[in-house]
Amino acid sequence: MSVFHHHFGAASVAAFSLFVASAALAKEPIVEYREGVMEAIGGHTSALKQLITGKVDFSDDAKVHVLGIAALSKLVDHLFPAGSNKGETEALPAIWEKPTDFKKAVEAFQLAAAELAKQADASPAAMAPAFGAMVKTCKGCHDDFKKK
Amino acid sequence: MSVFHHHFGAASVAAFSLFVASAALAKEPIVEYREGVMEAIGGHTSALKQLITGKVDFSDDAKVHVLGIAALSKLVDHLFPAGSNKGETEALPAIWEKPTDFKKAVEAFQLAAAELAKQADASPAAMAPAFGAMVKTCKGCHDDFKKK
Repeated sequence: MSVFHHHFGAASVAAFSLFVASAALAKEPIVEYREGVMEAIGGHTSALKQLITGKVDFSDDAKVHVLGIAALSKLVDHLFPAGSNKGETEALPAIWEKPTDFKKAVEAFQLAAAELAKQADASPAAMAPAFGAMVKTCKGCHDDFKKK
Repeated sequence: MSVFHHHFGAASVAAFSLFVASAALAKEPIVEYREGVMEAIGGHTSALKQLITGKVDFSDDAKVHVLGIAALSKLVDHLFPAGSNKGETEALPAIWEKPTDFKKAVEAFQLAAAELAKQADASPAAMAPAFGAMVKTCKGCHDDFKKK
């Protein structure tokens, strides 16, 4: 019996540890949401880069990506509500500590995404300057407000 | 001098190894492109899941995601051209070995994404059945045609 109890105890501890670990790893829904939105922006941007640099020749696809990015950029406004820096997140406290600077950085991205979307019917090559300007706003915001 | 030569040799070997490693890691542009498209679909889907399960309350955002997924689903048609299974890729040979099955799996996804997009103006909760049906087509295709 003592062996049984010993094993049972160990299994319980293991189960509890797993529970604690998964609780610690669970992200807040708002964090899951914003990471999904950011992943979508990242995927569109990465795909678009292949078109704009001419490495992949599906010119007609570019429109899907620039319109997608522009639509998603508008959602960024509400991805960082007060209190959404809890748990596992790559968002830096600076977002809530310097709200004016952060708002400016988000607006720069939204403006650049809207400018790029104006060229939705242009050739990928023609989109290069507006695309470069937009990517700069991504980097600018990530540098100051996202964990490395 | 022998120490110098030894170090120089080691540095050259290290540099060469880095070169080889980065050459081995470089993905084909078409693979980068399709991974960007898939990442965008994944991001939209993951974000949408938070809305549909009611964990995050930005109902108006759902439209952006369902339209985004539907637009991206059409691009999947040309993401797997002949010869695009070279280098680092998660695509399985089955894609090119069983083209009819693969085409069927892609079309099931496109159809499900189009059905979901028909509800673009519905509430996220109302989208649940069509969303579930679409996610099933993702899983179905990944099970058979994507590396684990």
